[in-house]
Amino acid sequence: MAEAQSMRRIGVVVKRDQPKALALGRELITWLKQRGLDPIIDRDSAAELHDGMGVSKAEVATTADLIVVLGGDGTLLSIAHCIRDRPVPVLGVNLGGLGFLTAVTSEELFPVLADVLVGQFTVDRRMTLAAVLHRANGTVGDYQALNDVVITKGALAHIIDLETTVDGDHVATYKADGLIVATPTGSTAYAMSAGGPIVYPSLGVMVLSPICPHTLTNRPMVLPETSVIRVTVRSDRQQDVVLTLDGQEGYPLLPDDTIEIRKGASVVPLIQSPARGYFEVLRQKLRWGER
Amino acid sequence: MAEAQSMRRIGVVVKRDQPKALALGRELITWLKQRGLDPIIDRDSAAELHDGMGVSKAEVATTADLIVVLGGDGTLLSIAHCIRDRPVPVLGVNLGGLGFLTAVTSEELFPVLADVLVGQFTVDRRMTLAAVLHRANGTVGDYQALNDVVITKGALAHIIDLETTVDGDHVATYKADGLIVATPTGSTAYAMSAGGPIVYPSLGVMVLSPICPHTLTNRPMVLPETSVIRVTVRSDRQQDVVLTLDGQEGYPLLPDDTIEIRKGASVVPLIQSPARGYFEVLRQKLRWGER
Amino acid sequence: MAEAQSMRRIGVVVKRDQPKALALGRELITWLKQRGLDPIIDRDSAAELHDGMGVSKAEVATTADLIVVLGGDGTLLSIAHCIRDRPVPVLGVNLGGLGFLTAVTSEELFPVLADVLVGQFTVDRRMTLAAVLHRANGTVGDYQALNDVVITKGALAHIIDLETTVDGDHVATYKADGLIVATPTGSTAYAMSAGGPIVYPSLGVMVLSPICPHTLTNRPMVLPETSVIRVTVRSDRQQDVVLTLDGQEGYPLLPDDTIEIRKGASVVPLIQSPARGYFEVLRQKLRWGER
Amino acid sequence: MAEAQSMRRIGVVVKRDQPKALALGRELITWLKQRGLDPIIDRDSAAELHDGMGVSKAEVATTADLIVVLGGDGTLLSIAHCIRDRPVPVLGVNLGGLGFLTAVTSEELFPVLADVLVGQFTVDRRMTLAAVLHRANGTVGDYQALNDVVITKGALAHIIDLETTVDGDHVATYKADGLIVATPTGSTAYAMSAGGPIVYPSLGVMVLSPICPHTLTNRPMVLPETSVIRVTVRSDRQQDVVLTLDGQEGYPLLPDDTIEIRKGASVVPLIQSPARGYFEVLRQKLRWGER
Repeated sequence: MAEAQSMRRIGVVVKRDQPKALALGRELITWLKQRGLDPIIDRDSAAELHDGMGVSKAEVATTADLIVVLGGDGTLLSIAHCIRDRPVPVLGVNLGGLGFLTAVTSEELFPVLADVLVGQFTVDRRMTLAAVLHRANGTVGDYQALNDVVITKGALAHIIDLETTVDGDHVATYKADGLIVATPTGSTAYAMSAGGPIVYPSLGVMVLSPICPHTLTNRPMVLPETSVIRVTVRSDRQQDVVLTLDGQEGYPLLPDDTIEIRKGASVVPLIQSPARGYFEVLRQKLRWGER
Repeated sequence: MAEAQSMRRIGVVVKRDQPKALALGRELITWLKQRGLDPIIDRDSAAELHDGMGVSKAEVATTADLIVVLGGDGTLLSIAHCIRDRPVPVLGVNLGGLGFLTAVTSEELFPVLADVLVGQFTVDRRMTLAAVLHRANGTVGDYQALNDVVITKGALAHIIDLETTVDGDHVATYKADGLIVATPTGSTAYAMSAGGPIVYPSLGVMVLSPICPHTLTNRPMVLPETSVIRVTVRSDRQQDVVLTLDGQEGYPLLPDDTIEIRKGASVVPLIQSPARGYFEVLRQKLRWGER
Repeated sequence: MAEAQSMRRIGVVVKRDQPKALALGRELITWLKQRGLDPIIDRDSAAELHDGMGVSKAEVATTADLIVVLGGDGTLLSIAHCIRDRPVPVLGVNLGGLGFLTAVTSEELFPVLADVLVGQFTVDRRMTLAAVLHRANGTVGDYQALNDVVITKGALAHIIDLETTVDGDHVATYKADGLIVATPTGSTAYAMSAGGPIVYPSLGVMVLSPICPHTLTNRPMVLPETSVIRVTVRSDRQQDVVLTLDGQEGYPLLPDDTIEIRKGASVVPLIQSPARGYFEVLRQKLRWGER
Repeated sequence: MAEAQSMRRIGVVVKRDQPKALALGRELITWLKQRGLDPIIDRDSAAELHDGMGVSKAEVATTADLIVVLGGDGTLLSIAHCIRDRPVPVLGVNLGGLGFLTAVTSEELFPVLADVLVGQFTVDRRMTLAAVLHRANGTVGDYQALNDVVITKGALAHIIDLETTVDGDHVATYKADGLIVATPTGSTAYAMSAGGPIVYPSLGVMVLSPICPHTLTNRPMVLPETSVIRVTVRSDRQQDVVLTLDGQEGYPLLPDDTIEIRKGASVVPLIQSPARGYFEVLRQKLRWGER
């Protein structure tokens, strides 16, 4: 149980182009105002809702006491990126069934929210990844991810060589379509499609999974959260290689670029569904119990 | 044993930028001329060898009685694309070990070639794939592949929906990084990295393998060679989706483009190594016998 | 459409210990008798149904013009084993959803049966496997399977070596928990759990899949139906190794036993569901369309 | 670097039936005696070496200051089982290449041993598993494993249901050939053949991997070392189901038996090879760098 907090400013982030999300968004804003709470609506959501100008997602993340996301896992990831020093709790509400990150249904929204506002809730403090892109002439950028840091080749590129070290020790030069470094949270996202294991969300580990490796024994690897993973793009000519964070932001890479990945300083506190635990969500999402 | 043929015009295709290939290429040309044979050198190879102007690969394929490839599987694929109505036998020589398509070593080249020229050889008639790209306003192009026809999304694209039918019956709408349709020959290439089975080369089948499918039960599927596979790119906006043939040629796709894939009319007659059979090549390439 | 046949003797095989199967079985027998048809009930089913003595499954298979199976795929396999020279059509009715072999539901039974009796049906002629067990002093037995021939070690046995040839050529000595040789029909059964591909049911191929191989590159292999596969159990001492057919019959194996597997002479004609095609059954059974 | 310890009693465990191991074993004993050290030979090894009566492995484990194993990973596991309260360091010497647990070659034995005896060595403290078998009338036994605790069905048994909870929460009822709970050390052993990930050896996690699960989405799962995993065998009749520890000891299970698995109290200190790190052993064992 989290300690009771005074939550007055409630961030609202709504999935775009989804009528159900908009309707529920309006209902949520009314509900909040009726209770004298202050909805802080992100700019994109405000435009969709025709409700003022809204503020940037970064501002939502830095000013809200609680963020409610109405949408799927993708919508939640977009705001999670903005959570940096202040670990503001996030309540993910899924509108089309159930998500790994959005394990509260729209029917459950208001009862769960009422409980949350009086401090009746539990959070999972989800680990993030920090990635830094090093180029010949210095550091080009640094990024954060809740699910995964991915290096992939474009559709037209030839197979790429990804020289990989962990804490300075050579691991392998992967010949593959790409490489995924995932948090436990991301283990059930893209990394799973690439053959990676399910990782219990509270574990302090990272999963390194090659995508379609040429060498069949290049299996996914589970590494300590203290590891520093460095991936260098080896290619004799410029190819279409891209760094992506949570499948949302992408940055083109050049030959000999190195991406350094380690545990992020930020933590994303996900409010847990009181109705269903981790394994129940797994069973529903992965359709266990049936072939 | 193939019937003895009078082979006088010998196509020569040499891997680029590989000193060993060039040296062996020069040796081969001298060897052929000494025997009164007529080397038909492809343009790229001729430039590398500083030996005349050469002719296009298409012309090599239409005029040669035999084609000798010095390089890896990639070099062999580049000339295989040009073999259409005339099934000219191809002798693949691998310079760096052993390839699935180039199962003769450089040491074996001249003894094997001497045998081939007197009709002492066996060919594997390898099936090809024909792909036709249909767009709103008609047919955009038709293509041939010896290994595989691949539809993939670019590194920055979101997951794509690939609506797939076989002989008009709906199979699945794959949510995946892409889809591979492979010949038995291609089963040990990209399709294997994506989790596909090894298919005996003489079989009349196609392998349909999704790449990193979102749905884990979307397993690779083996289909009859008589099947007509149609894949339609479903996406609500234009994304970076590409059609590639044997990993060599690529064509951008638009939303609602349909790629129709069936067995190709052409056959590529690969000259078999007299020294090692199919399973021996498999064992060496896949490092069986050792973990 | 099959040619109209005069079907008078209708084999009835009912799953044991399943009240729903028994109730439907009694209804079926009444229905048949009302139409002047002659139900031929297998011995086990007759005991369950309290309906006479019944006859052996072998006699059902040799005397019936049509066999109706009420149960799951396991029940269907038990009678399929008995179909030898006379390819009697089998109608599989699944009582608990849908099976790969039993693609007719209990609701559909009587309308489909009425059509079948007037020749309105299509069959899939499913290939079988024939296995012969050779021991030092000669042939020990020969067997038939519709799904798969499996060689596995017992729970306490150490890893076993399975020396495997195809048409006399050495393929590999698999270090594994076992080896599955499956028909296309069996490709969606045990072989799929072991990582094998889905194989279109009409194809003339066999799938050779190692179970938990020590060598990760020992991938499933698709072979021509004309292949003769020989598997020899290599072990320096007697271990608990067993040959099983369709997961139903089992025979202990000794060191140096050889199992020879080839396409069976028998064919099992499965009556197709008029309501759903092969890919629809796949989609339902494998839960495609949902993650 | 471990603190220098006074090591006088040196356990010696030698692989059976391997001439090379015996020869090196004799050499080792002579070497130890020449240095005034006291070889403590296990009973089986003594019989092989014709060197006295030897003592039980349990006595080796409780009295030696250091244990030298000459053989493969299996030989090392047999003595690791006996290490309970006293974490005596183990030096594993592989005679046939390299093992995951025996990463010192026979050529390196004496130089490495000389260093170890003067305290020049590093150990990896490998986590173990403790398993307790509960039956209707109480606890039947408790066991220890360094690699894995495995529950599998026999070759003739039908598919079994393994009802599994973690910390009291239902995870799944696996329909499978069996279930592996592995330590990070065991992740590169049987669990890898069943599709599990590579886990960095120092991590405090357990891997739960179903063997050939009927449900394809039952992927391997990485759990905290603090988890208590309970697996109950569900079967309507007595089947051939077995509990095995490190693939070495086996115990038959009855319907409704529950196996409770948690982190073991013991730790096995493996002396690291000074010549090669973890990733180098991986690369060599899994043949990375080559397809």
